[in-house]
Amino acid sequence: MQFSKSLAFLVATLATSLTVARTANPPGNWGVLLFPNFAALDVFGPIEALNLLSETVPLNLSLIAKTLDPVPTQPHVLGEVSNFTQSVVPTHTLANAPSDIEDLRDEIAFIRDTYPRLKYLIAVCTGAWLAADSGVLDGHNATTNKAAWAERPVNNTVNWIAHARWVVDGNIWTSSGISAGIDAALAFVGEIYGEGLATDIANAMEYERNTDPTRDPFADLYGL
Amino acid sequence: MQFSKSLAFLVATLATSLTVARTANPPGNWGVLLFPNFAALDVFGPIEALNLLSETVPLNLSLIAKTLDPVPTQPHVLGEVSNFTQSVVPTHTLANAPSDIEDLRDEIAFIRDTYPRLKYLIAVCTGAWLAADSGVLDGHNATTNKAAWAERPVNNTVNWIAHARWVVDGNIWTSSGISAGIDAALAFVGEIYGEGLATDIANAMEYERNTDPTRDPFADLYGL
Repeated sequence: MQFSKSLAFLVATLATSLTVARTANPPGNWGVLLFPNFAALDVFGPIEALNLLSETVPLNLSLIAKTLDPVPTQPHVLGEVSNFTQSVVPTHTLANAPSDIEDLRDEIAFIRDTYPRLKYLIAVCTGAWLAADSGVLDGHNATTNKAAWAERPVNNTVNWIAHARWVVDGNIWTSSGISAGIDAALAFVGEIYGEGLATDIANAMEYERNTDPTRDPFADLYGL
Repeated sequence: MQFSKSLAFLVATLATSLTVARTANPPGNWGVLLFPNFAALDVFGPIEALNLLSETVPLNLSLIAKTLDPVPTQPHVLGEVSNFTQSVVPTHTLANAPSDIEDLRDEIAFIRDTYPRLKYLIAVCTGAWLAADSGVLDGHNATTNKAAWAERPVNNTVNWIAHARWVVDGNIWTSSGISAGIDAALAFVGEIYGEGLATDIANAMEYERNTDPTRDPFADLYGL
């Protein structure tokens, strides 16, 4: 089927967003690392939960990318099947991201170098691939997109868990594909900021949460 | 509770996104009308479904706003509780939006004037308020955000339906709050482009769809 074929390309090349929270308890400063060809909902599902949280809890947001140019979703479709993309405006480059970052060569180096200063790291969908490539998942449990499970990085010691909506290991949270980032973000809000607030936010989003991290019908669907 | 208070302000002032599809069968040209202070997931939930659809079906996207300046989410929080916002880059202004538009005074006029040329109109969350104010919902069934149900426009003849995840009346689709836009978008894809494709897209999003438009736990939650 044509959709499945193009989908395999899709998830192999986009959906590489990664959300990080910086030192504070609970974290007040959030950075979202934007990669070209990111999946819109990977970022804006969790972001919507945090947008609503920011009405109650003082939060600062940095949208970090290589340059300050708008970062597009799925530009690879241009000239192929469709002309259908959106762009988000970064607020910081890797070079001037909040806190004094030393190594700025690329986003993976950014993750590797930034992680030691983080209170929490949250990787959504195939954003976990970049976290794995950076080495910060070595020796940890993690999960990632199920449709593209076969493409996950294997040349490291990550203990990839197939049947998981999201996985928490120490201060690293990883979620399954796209929509799972909403559940992971709400679970994070519940754990760090309070379950009552997480429930209020889900209700404001009119979102029926998945609250069991081990329940994953999509792992079954994709034969994992 | 502080959250509920700020939430009332939140939903009263943002979440005014509206998605429109232009003449074609099935529609190939999609426009998303962006308003300052829109709710991120109102736009990017449905957009993610369409992004994935665009891998299979040829689609064009126009992101339409008053000017080409980046359009922010929730800027009202700046200087209040948090510094937490994102911006999306429009591709067209109301003045140069695809097709020959006559009256460009504001977004409501844009909806009123554009609707007669539309094949379908899809209003997400309080985007339905703008559609109501434009008059295009007069005499029609529609739904909207449940938490802010009391603020919906009443000086018109819209038959507002409280217990609905989404409502279809003729060529007008309206959805309940924020996340409901994802279900409405997937239902639209199912009806117009094929149910198999809608299922594939939901699976690619790892999203457990609500497929019954009349099932609405949030109407109950908010006592409607």
